[in-house]
Amino acid sequence: MPRLGTVAIIGVGLIGGSIGKALRERGLAERVVGIGRDPLKLADGVRLGAIDEGTTDPRRGVAEAEVVVVCTPVPQIAADVRNAAEWGLEGVLVTDAGSTKRELVEEVARHPRARAVFVAGHPIAGSERKGVAYADGNLFAGRTCILTPTSDTDPDRLLRARHFWTGLGCRLIETSPEAHDRALALTSHLPHAVASALAGVVPVESLAMAAGAYRDGTRVAGSDASLWTGIFRANRDSVLESVTAFQERLTAFKNALVADDEQVLIDLWNTAKLQRAHFDAENLAPSTES
Amino acid sequence: MPRLGTVAIIGVGLIGGSIGKALRERGLAERVVGIGRDPLKLADGVRLGAIDEGTTDPRRGVAEAEVVVVCTPVPQIAADVRNAAEWGLEGVLVTDAGSTKRELVEEVARHPRARAVFVAGHPIAGSERKGVAYADGNLFAGRTCILTPTSDTDPDRLLRARHFWTGLGCRLIETSPEAHDRALALTSHLPHAVASALAGVVPVESLAMAAGAYRDGTRVAGSDASLWTGIFRANRDSVLESVTAFQERLTAFKNALVADDEQVLIDLWNTAKLQRAHFDAENLAPSTES
Repeated sequence: MPRLGTVAIIGVGLIGGSIGKALRERGLAERVVGIGRDPLKLADGVRLGAIDEGTTDPRRGVAEAEVVVVCTPVPQIAADVRNAAEWGLEGVLVTDAGSTKRELVEEVARHPRARAVFVAGHPIAGSERKGVAYADGNLFAGRTCILTPTSDTDPDRLLRARHFWTGLGCRLIETSPEAHDRALALTSHLPHAVASALAGVVPVESLAMAAGAYRDGTRVAGSDASLWTGIFRANRDSVLESVTAFQERLTAFKNALVADDEQVLIDLWNTAKLQRAHFDAENLAPSTES
Repeated sequence: MPRLGTVAIIGVGLIGGSIGKALRERGLAERVVGIGRDPLKLADGVRLGAIDEGTTDPRRGVAEAEVVVVCTPVPQIAADVRNAAEWGLEGVLVTDAGSTKRELVEEVARHPRARAVFVAGHPIAGSERKGVAYADGNLFAGRTCILTPTSDTDPDRLLRARHFWTGLGCRLIETSPEAHDRALALTSHLPHAVASALAGVVPVESLAMAAGAYRDGTRVAGSDASLWTGIFRANRDSVLESVTAFQERLTAFKNALVADDEQVLIDLWNTAKLQRAHFDAENLAPSTES
């Protein structure tokens, strides 16, 4: 892909910082500007090589950007997209890294200028850790990025968004915002809700007798509370549906155990094991992600 | 600890094979005899360095053993302990590696000779993988082994069991069989049931959009169906209690989401996160285990 001029990143945390690092390490942009509220964190971003420079003034930060990537928490993304669209260059591409898409795309669509410049994105990579200190230029290598264009999306900017995300190392999937949110409710939001409920129900005094099943099953419960609350709320209907489906499955297990029905227990287990095997078959090189 | 003579391992799979490897690599026994039903698997065990020799005849296999370790699936352990007690040397110590203890200890207690030689053990180490091919002499290094002696337990054999398991690298916890089963229902059996329900509810066609939260949250769903069905059934009451407590916690999350109560969602998340942080603080070097 041709080298980009200035790329602005709004929100320089784990994801924003990793995008900055990837752009800089791969020589994909002439300049990476980080935009945030905390000058100390922006200084960290510069020191850690995630951005070339930082500013707390979003208007100034996006002024010269060819691409603006919004990496703020879900409830804040729509406003940041609108601002970047208004304050940015005529030809600016605005994309984002948010974990939910339907509500965001609807909100952006209400603003003609934002609608015209925006291509919604979601790189499925992350970690339960937070902050630019954990940023990693290889975070996106081989990971999936989902783009959710609609009939509103400018075809030229869609092309540029594809180049942008594949340049960071992502393989692309394109789907509707609605289909994205339904799928992610199952593949990501539900696993987070389940991990948190599991961590919440195992008392601290039993942890000396816990090992790998607990460790892996609760890992993402260590993620940020307000970040995940924002995601759950933005995808409420699909999350509730997924939790209900999960509860039904667990109740089927419970009923089989109450009835001491060995065959049903084995069948439930083997169906799940078989579905899970597809994931391993498709993901031969797992890395840090969420 | 003084070097042991012959150690017999009944069931040379992942756990039995790892015990054999640890004994041999650490020079803890003069001879390790593997006992199993499949001569080909026993030959694998010899080839892979897990045992010195194998036999399909348990009576012959335990005849000269100073220690017999029963590593068969949970429903089979009590019978293997009884046989080892009957066929073994006068002074034999019989221990096991089973994941549930109350039912087993009760069954063994009905047989005076078995009761006299048995010390129940549970090394909390393992993997979702199965078979001697995955055996690892370092599987127990730094891991917890729970011993569940009762008033029936011979004090001398308890001492020998402590030496045996610490010799493999374990740190010990001693508790009652009942307390063991209640704790493990929460720390291990529930996480397995939850992982399986999660894997069962995410359709294969969404897996391209799954990443780390799904991967870790479902890892142990790849474990063996009949092994885990045996564990759930042997610890039914405590597993059912744990699943119910978990469902209540998940329902609290669901209710808060239905009510769109941000503060309750954040509080639920942070309580769980705090409990989970204790685990990380206590386990600075996680390894393959289940």
